[in-house]
Amino acid sequence: MLHLAIADSELELVPKSIVEHPAVVNYARRRGKKPEEVILDSSYHHSALRKLEDGERRGRPDIVHICLLNALESIANKEGLLRVYVHTRNDEVIYVKPETRLPRNYNRFLGLMESLFKNRVVPKDLELLRIEEKTLNELVEEIGPDEVFVMHEGGEFMKPRDFGKVLVELENPLVIVGGFPHGDFRSQVKGKKVSLYREPLMAWTVVNEVLVNFEASLGL
Amino acid sequence: MLHLAIADSELELVPKSIVEHPAVVNYARRRGKKPEEVILDSSYHHSALRKLEDGERRGRPDIVHICLLNALESIANKEGLLRVYVHTRNDEVIYVKPETRLPRNYNRFLGLMESLFKNRVVPKDLELLRIEEKTLNELVEEIGPDEVFVMHEGGEFMKPRDFGKVLVELENPLVIVGGFPHGDFRSQVKGKKVSLYREPLMAWTVVNEVLVNFEASLGL
Repeated sequence: MLHLAIADSELELVPKSIVEHPAVVNYARRRGKKPEEVILDSSYHHSALRKLEDGERRGRPDIVHICLLNALESIANKEGLLRVYVHTRNDEVIYVKPETRLPRNYNRFLGLMESLFKNRVVPKDLELLRIEEKTLNELVEEIGPDEVFVMHEGGEFMKPRDFGKVLVELENPLVIVGGFPHGDFRSQVKGKKVSLYREPLMAWTVVNEVLVNFEASLGL
Repeated sequence: MLHLAIADSELELVPKSIVEHPAVVNYARRRGKKPEEVILDSSYHHSALRKLEDGERRGRPDIVHICLLNALESIANKEGLLRVYVHTRNDEVIYVKPETRLPRNYNRFLGLMESLFKNRVVPKDLELLRIEEKTLNELVEEIGPDEVFVMHEGGEFMKPRDFGKVLVELENPLVIVGGFPHGDFRSQVKGKKVSLYREPLMAWTVVNEVLVNFEASLGL
């Protein structure tokens, strides 16, 4: 089983310190929600984000959305060979059941995430998504992988195809991809740092390279 | 050069016959636009879509968005080996310059598409995106590929890895992927039909499989 963790993702509710900011209040009103119940989104809360630490990288649920759509609709996942986790900057972990059919529409995805943060599981009956307070290291310990790879622009260069070959030699590899737009991991992550290209790649590009080369090495 | 065409995409402005439908009027007002200037979106115009032919598959700009984000941020594109085109159900073709950095946010992407349909090029100076009236066959003729592959669930099965090997043996292959949620191509497309998996795949999954295996076969 290949485990994929989107780590230090910039996915969170609007922080308390800016719930009264006009950009947040107006946005929440437009969506018919309370300001403290909406997901932080840099596209709409840009002016409020300037007041926050790390404001230039926060509020990026779109990155999580695209990574998850690619991972869940991959052949690896259809073959039952993949487990996906989303770890957030506030040390929460979202467990995603492999059969989850995520909303393709971004605004519906935001609504789902807001419901998840509020109710901790969605939907109530099937529990396709579940969120728990957990650090990245606690998640790693829980998964118990035989090896941990941290995708990192400063890591050892490996051709994506060769990395796929490495993955299929293992029983339970864990691949950690940063769910943020730029900068470095906030979590202290132990593992072998790997870089797939000479330039930084978007998180979803790394997800695609890892999954497709994993499948190819399996002969799928 | 690998040419990738997302074909018969369900990307269009709201058709004239439903511009007065309440679902469309309210949506346009919320977004501060005229009803005839907004992109059809099944998430919001569902009730209006029931009145349209093919209503159950139309209004899917999200599929185009995700396919383009994956293609433009791929290693193949960063290496200058890819050209991407979006052909729509109304026989328009969008030319996308490889250096385009598409909005990650879906709502901003919709705004960009609305601007493109109105002004025919965006932005005015760089002309990163350009739209022209053109059928899929006219686009194929213009590209002049040495071989055309139509990704199709009823096509000849080929492992994605083997398909990548076929692509790199050619000078100017064209891969056509359907930009619709289900059903068949509306355009009459000539080419070798290829299937990468025993079940239907989402359009963006096919894009990822094609591009990553193309790169791997090149030894990138």
